[in-house]
Amino acid sequence: MTKNTYRLDTILRLRKIAKNRKHARQKVGAAPGTIYETPGASETNIRCWSYHSGGAEPTDITGIKQVEDLKRNQADGSLLWVDVQGLASIELIQSVGQLFGLHSLVIEDVINVGQKPKAEVHDDDYIVVIMREPCGGPPFDSEQVGIVFGPNFVLTFQERHADIFDPVRKRLVEGSRNMTEIGAPYLGYCLIDAVIDGYFPILEGYGELTETLEQLVLEKAEPGLIADIHVLKRELLEMRRAVWAQREALNVLLRDETTLVPEALKVYLRDCADHSFQLLDMVEVCREVSQGLVELYMSSISNRMSDIMKVLTVISTIFIPMSFFAGLYGMNFDTSSPYNLPELKWKFGYFYCLGLMATSAVLMLFYFKRKGLIGQGS
Amino acid sequence: MTKNTYRLDTILRLRKIAKNRKHARQKVGAAPGTIYETPGASETNIRCWSYHSGGAEPTDITGIKQVEDLKRNQADGSLLWVDVQGLASIELIQSVGQLFGLHSLVIEDVINVGQKPKAEVHDDDYIVVIMREPCGGPPFDSEQVGIVFGPNFVLTFQERHADIFDPVRKRLVEGSRNMTEIGAPYLGYCLIDAVIDGYFPILEGYGELTETLEQLVLEKAEPGLIADIHVLKRELLEMRRAVWAQREALNVLLRDETTLVPEALKVYLRDCADHSFQLLDMVEVCREVSQGLVELYMSSISNRMSDIMKVLTVISTIFIPMSFFAGLYGMNFDTSSPYNLPELKWKFGYFYCLGLMATSAVLMLFYFKRKGLIGQGS
Amino acid sequence: MTKNTYRLDTILRLRKIAKNRKHARQKVGAAPGTIYETPGASETNIRCWSYHSGGAEPTDITGIKQVEDLKRNQADGSLLWVDVQGLASIELIQSVGQLFGLHSLVIEDVINVGQKPKAEVHDDDYIVVIMREPCGGPPFDSEQVGIVFGPNFVLTFQERHADIFDPVRKRLVEGSRNMTEIGAPYLGYCLIDAVIDGYFPILEGYGELTETLEQLVLEKAEPGLIADIHVLKRELLEMRRAVWAQREALNVLLRDETTLVPEALKVYLRDCADHSFQLLDMVEVCREVSQGLVELYMSSISNRMSDIMKVLTVISTIFIPMSFFAGLYGMNFDTSSPYNLPELKWKFGYFYCLGLMATSAVLMLFYFKRKGLIGQGS
Amino acid sequence: MTKNTYRLDTILRLRKIAKNRKHARQKVGAAPGTIYETPGASETNIRCWSYHSGGAEPTDITGIKQVEDLKRNQADGSLLWVDVQGLASIELIQSVGQLFGLHSLVIEDVINVGQKPKAEVHDDDYIVVIMREPCGGPPFDSEQVGIVFGPNFVLTFQERHADIFDPVRKRLVEGSRNMTEIGAPYLGYCLIDAVIDGYFPILEGYGELTETLEQLVLEKAEPGLIADIHVLKRELLEMRRAVWAQREALNVLLRDETTLVPEALKVYLRDCADHSFQLLDMVEVCREVSQGLVELYMSSISNRMSDIMKVLTVISTIFIPMSFFAGLYGMNFDTSSPYNLPELKWKFGYFYCLGLMATSAVLMLFYFKRKGLIGQGS
Amino acid sequence: MTKNTYRLDTILRLRKIAKNRKHARQKVGAAPGTIYETPGASETNIRCWSYHSGGAEPTDITGIKQVEDLKRNQADGSLLWVDVQGLASIELIQSVGQLFGLHSLVIEDVINVGQKPKAEVHDDDYIVVIMREPCGGPPFDSEQVGIVFGPNFVLTFQERHADIFDPVRKRLVEGSRNMTEIGAPYLGYCLIDAVIDGYFPILEGYGELTETLEQLVLEKAEPGLIADIHVLKRELLEMRRAVWAQREALNVLLRDETTLVPEALKVYLRDCADHSFQLLDMVEVCREVSQGLVELYMSSISNRMSDIMKVLTVISTIFIPMSFFAGLYGMNFDTSSPYNLPELKWKFGYFYCLGLMATSAVLMLFYFKRKGLIGQGS
Repeated sequence: MTKNTYRLDTILRLRKIAKNRKHARQKVGAAPGTIYETPGASETNIRCWSYHSGGAEPTDITGIKQVEDLKRNQADGSLLWVDVQGLASIELIQSVGQLFGLHSLVIEDVINVGQKPKAEVHDDDYIVVIMREPCGGPPFDSEQVGIVFGPNFVLTFQERHADIFDPVRKRLVEGSRNMTEIGAPYLGYCLIDAVIDGYFPILEGYGELTETLEQLVLEKAEPGLIADIHVLKRELLEMRRAVWAQREALNVLLRDETTLVPEALKVYLRDCADHSFQLLDMVEVCREVSQGLVELYMSSISNRMSDIMKVLTVISTIFIPMSFFAGLYGMNFDTSSPYNLPELKWKFGYFYCLGLMATSAVLMLFYFKRKGLIGQGS
Repeated sequence: MTKNTYRLDTILRLRKIAKNRKHARQKVGAAPGTIYETPGASETNIRCWSYHSGGAEPTDITGIKQVEDLKRNQADGSLLWVDVQGLASIELIQSVGQLFGLHSLVIEDVINVGQKPKAEVHDDDYIVVIMREPCGGPPFDSEQVGIVFGPNFVLTFQERHADIFDPVRKRLVEGSRNMTEIGAPYLGYCLIDAVIDGYFPILEGYGELTETLEQLVLEKAEPGLIADIHVLKRELLEMRRAVWAQREALNVLLRDETTLVPEALKVYLRDCADHSFQLLDMVEVCREVSQGLVELYMSSISNRMSDIMKVLTVISTIFIPMSFFAGLYGMNFDTSSPYNLPELKWKFGYFYCLGLMATSAVLMLFYFKRKGLIGQGS
Repeated sequence: MTKNTYRLDTILRLRKIAKNRKHARQKVGAAPGTIYETPGASETNIRCWSYHSGGAEPTDITGIKQVEDLKRNQADGSLLWVDVQGLASIELIQSVGQLFGLHSLVIEDVINVGQKPKAEVHDDDYIVVIMREPCGGPPFDSEQVGIVFGPNFVLTFQERHADIFDPVRKRLVEGSRNMTEIGAPYLGYCLIDAVIDGYFPILEGYGELTETLEQLVLEKAEPGLIADIHVLKRELLEMRRAVWAQREALNVLLRDETTLVPEALKVYLRDCADHSFQLLDMVEVCREVSQGLVELYMSSISNRMSDIMKVLTVISTIFIPMSFFAGLYGMNFDTSSPYNLPELKWKFGYFYCLGLMATSAVLMLFYFKRKGLIGQGS
Repeated sequence: MTKNTYRLDTILRLRKIAKNRKHARQKVGAAPGTIYETPGASETNIRCWSYHSGGAEPTDITGIKQVEDLKRNQADGSLLWVDVQGLASIELIQSVGQLFGLHSLVIEDVINVGQKPKAEVHDDDYIVVIMREPCGGPPFDSEQVGIVFGPNFVLTFQERHADIFDPVRKRLVEGSRNMTEIGAPYLGYCLIDAVIDGYFPILEGYGELTETLEQLVLEKAEPGLIADIHVLKRELLEMRRAVWAQREALNVLLRDETTLVPEALKVYLRDCADHSFQLLDMVEVCREVSQGLVELYMSSISNRMSDIMKVLTVISTIFIPMSFFAGLYGMNFDTSSPYNLPELKWKFGYFYCLGLMATSAVLMLFYFKRKGLIGQGS
Repeated sequence: MTKNTYRLDTILRLRKIAKNRKHARQKVGAAPGTIYETPGASETNIRCWSYHSGGAEPTDITGIKQVEDLKRNQADGSLLWVDVQGLASIELIQSVGQLFGLHSLVIEDVINVGQKPKAEVHDDDYIVVIMREPCGGPPFDSEQVGIVFGPNFVLTFQERHADIFDPVRKRLVEGSRNMTEIGAPYLGYCLIDAVIDGYFPILEGYGELTETLEQLVLEKAEPGLIADIHVLKRELLEMRRAVWAQREALNVLLRDETTLVPEALKVYLRDCADHSFQLLDMVEVCREVSQGLVELYMSSISNRMSDIMKVLTVISTIFIPMSFFAGLYGMNFDTSSPYNLPELKWKFGYFYCLGLMATSAVLMLFYFKRKGLIGQGS
């Protein structure tokens, strides 16, 4: 059933694109756990936060040695957050991961951006949550963030230098009861919650965009609008994938029996899952409405075309019979024969002819009126 | 795959909207349980109802102190309903919540409107049900209502001063056997049932709206109708979300093993769940029919355009050949040559020419008749 | 996102409808179990059938007293069928229900028509099955029937005086082995089966209707057909809801462990469930085909419009150049200058002109032929 | 919501069909197990095959007595296949069924054609599999076949005299190890497998049909093609139902714990289920592609119409201004006034006029070229 | 409901195709396990790899004897990979399969190409994984590969001589810890992973193709583009089937309790399953976007037609009234009557007439401007 194929120029065009493409996925067939450099990755900055009941102080890290020291000197009941921003220094990140005992596939996942959001529970050792953090929109922009938390440490790996965790950092400095009592898992939850909450203003923006496009379509269906609707639908699709996968990840955490998610934390995670469900709902509504926009646009074009045809039809059908009469009495039959165009010789022939024309025009107008083609604001 | 993006003017328009927007979601990154004020919330009125076997008397509340007194003096087997309308006084509501031992996330949920309907069972302590109460429609208007019930108390938090609970209040004053025997959970059920029942007249209204739009489309597919259908579809979508989530909430209550939902109550809740299922069914039918309306509208426009074209075609193709003959015999060839326009010199040339015209017109009419383009009411 | 709303005249029209509407759902907020009168309900007729191994004799009932007597005097192993037709006498029906110990919500369900089909097993006491009995179609007409059966009694509540149970009554009079051995549940099954079987001829009718509409659309896509297709789709949707819910109800009976559905009966119920599944299948096929009819209709309109345009284009483009030549040689340039319209003075100027016209017409025809616009039956 | 109904002539047309219809489903309300004659059923031929380790010999049966003898004299470990073709002799078939102890509902199922494919396990006594056997296509033709197998017998009931079981008969005559070891269930499997395999060439035919229609649509969207696509979609829908139900039937056999499906057979049945899954996949692909054909067809019509309009527009807009100039200089203003049509008196007035015409034509052509309406193969 | 059928010429065309077809599926009714030759299968090359902790050396095989020797002499803890490329020598492959104890149905599956991807666990003996290995695209090209692995052997059967396993062969020569510790199952996983990873560059190519088509549609909706979109959709459908089935196969491996998939391997298989899920996601996004392309294309055609009509309407409606005036004053009424065409005798009659024409043209242009039909880049 696959005899028909692409047209030649489509294939030629594709070949040209393929030749210019930088070979992004060199990984095919590579050993599992292989890490490939992301072209244009942001420079890596690491900052560590040591939290005790009183609050947290940050330390800027310049080498893996410093992290090792902090880890070795960590007090009981305290909590260490290694906050990595930018993924350019692969080796540094790898050594951080190895320091906290992460599996090589996990280190691969947090460094190789473009992962699907997911949560993996590695028994009671640590939990990995991969998320897509919204950076802005519309147009939608997002980056990958990997959150790893164990009994007394949290590691985060952000693709770029985004500020979505700033409110969490501020609360960390101030200290909070939950942070002290539940510890690292609670910080992990706060970070997850910050990412989820970050989608709300973005989705409100998409709600406004949908409404704006709706008004534009209703005002005047410009040809360019359908392209905008198309982009909107594609972005909503992308967002839906991210939000859906994040909801699944939260469900994995809620269902698992690990000691890393104590009962006291589950109340908060459930709230967070509710929010991600609400996000999914908002995305779905936007998607359905944007699908309706396509219909609206199509009917708008049809209406416009119908209006154009109406103008043509009304003008043409009124003037065509009138022109015919003008042509009729413009014929050159020899009027010496009394049977040839006798009207031309009538005294009021001209008025008779104008009368004919007016009659035909009035008849057409009357017909159009009755058919509803003209009048009453249509 | 995300190279194509929105057109410049769409983005500029959006920026302008974003600038004017009041920052509705200041909550991003806030600590869990944070409550933000709703702009334009209704003033808070609290009325308490103490119910014993005989009936209930209402007390209007002006401060939290009064509620505390009522709670302290509550007789065994009696039931206290704190009926909160309007969510402007956040602190007052928070203190009511704390008085009855609600979790901070629950208080957040009942105050922060715009939640998805849900039910949460907090063991045998209390059950929270968040619902969307219909206020009118079409156009659809709804408000959030939070219903919390424990062993001997019921709290309700309504966004505005709606009267959907009035019949329940009346029955409460009169007293009822179930209310005495089952107690607070039965009152909770009655309130839930009142909200669910409130959707029926609204959905009948939507049934009528759908039918009205159907008749309008069949009568004459005005350009404005598609916008109405679009709004209808969006409102039905919104209603479906609310009704669906409420059905899920009822299922949560029915499946849970809590002592707050005794077997005697489950019969009633099951009846209520049946009603919510029926609502969902009604919404789905409306949705399918309204989708059919789009098709109806589209075919209606096509039919209208086809009619317009038919008029143009019939008139044009009848008169164009006739006009040609008129033009032909209007030519100025030198008739001194016997080969030039000999017809002009015929005695009955004019009639011959009229005959030609009539023949061509009749031929065209005959052709249209045979093709079904004219006649028989089409 | 709900700024756009309905146009003013749509809302005004709706208000007018709402004003004229009789308030059908007065029940909002009423106590559970409240029964409201159906406007225009059929008069209530009750007939009782006492069945023993030999057969059954009917007794027409005029008061509840008679039913009580029959119930009191019922022999062991015998079976009493209270056959209620018409739901006007609410009190009489309520007292029948109470006599057999039905829950008030069950009595509400059998009297208040417009319920969704369902089955409820009340332990080993009785089973309630609400169904929609087909009365005819297309156009589809149905009524509610409630079937309640316990260990030794069957109650049926039909909305109107339909004759769908007549074959069952006849078999009851004649007696049957299964009826004697299995008893009331077998009679219950026979009644359910009769309702399910009643859908087959109706659905065959819809199959024929679909086919008829298909032929009509292929013959000539009249504007009215799309309205018929729309009604067809809506009725199939309605039927699907009823059939789907009935299949679910049968599954409830098959899965339940009650002694009222013995193993010997399950074989029959499974057969019945197979039939209801087959019905669902038939409805789904009709629905898919009717959706295809919309596409067929749309393409039919497009084809017709395309044909109309073709006629206009062919006639116009043939005559427009010819008319131009006629107009050209109808100009009044002063032929005393040898450069002005020398053709007019040629001996065969007229033939030359006719030749020009013929050439242009032939060229256009040739072009249309090559483009496939004319000829070969298209 | 059901006020709108069918148009009068649609209803009249339906009534006429209903009157002429032979009452196919007389069964409504009949006792369960009732068998109705299929109009035009094929004459019944029965052939019995007695299989022992060596092979099988067929016996043509003329009366039920012969089958009884064969059954009575059946050797241990041997296997009896009663191969029934044609369902006209209902009584004969019924007595065969009773001889092997089939339930009356099972006998009804194998005789009443038009059943949905299914499998029923009657404990360890026998298994009934109802299938739709493909007879040819496109256009799709199928018949019902009922396969019943017990510990040492197999019964098959074919609607007509199809040859789909011929290869199995041949292998039976030759004998096979599995047939001897597993016995009747293996023969049952072979027959089921033959039916499933019979769909592959049919579906390849549909793949070719889809491709053919695709090429035809791309070549030239003739009006008749949409009707073909519509029939294709309906047949694929029908096939999907059959294949889906057969896959479900196989799953029932695989999941059941009956001794009639030993572990050694399950390997083969699983292979068979894989094939039926593959069939479903092929049908689904055909269905999706055929849905794409509708879109292809619609866009093809739109393109054709657009081409027609382009021809009309180009020819009209080139000649209309030219004709205007011809008309202008054909006016009869009194040229004695120097202000009236002075061009007519110019020496090169005609050439000037021709120049005007040429200029306007060239401008229009240039405009069309720039707009992409003409040239470059479009 | 199946009265309508295909048109005669469609059926004739199909018959012709059917006659020319080589009978590909001779298998109908054949005994299970029958292998049919694939026409044009690639020549069979076998290479064996013996792996011990140090690394692997390849041996090119010319006969089954060599494989037997290698198997017999296999050291404990070592691993034998029989790498079969090309499926022409059925007997050789069969004897390899029998040597390792494969079931005849399994041998059938690996040789008969065109299987649906699947995984079958044969207890602790061996696992069969059938996959579709991508060879290139767009246009999509793939071949079947069968991977069988037991405790200490791996067999692969590739349809053609593809190089997708080359990186694995290289790593095998170099040796790896996992390969030594986990053994044959790890090699099996590496091969599966290589196939899955092979889809990523292909799907990136499809992403680019989708984008390219999108740009082409937005630039100019050429008639050929819809055929390309149609092919794209069909290929994505095909790819989705393969990817979906492969994901299911991986789930089968993950869920099974066999000792052939130890816990240490499951971490890797889960990573692999994540990748296949991501692939599915990418395919689905492409599919949704390509469906959006159809809408984009349709609206593009409509817009173009609307533009064409606009040109026709504007030109026609401006010139038609002007031509009418020209015709009016071209009439030949006898101007000796003062009532006949007095304008012809006016001194400035010509200018008056030109004025009339200009006025009508300006009025039309003004009307179009107000209606938005001309100007502002539309």
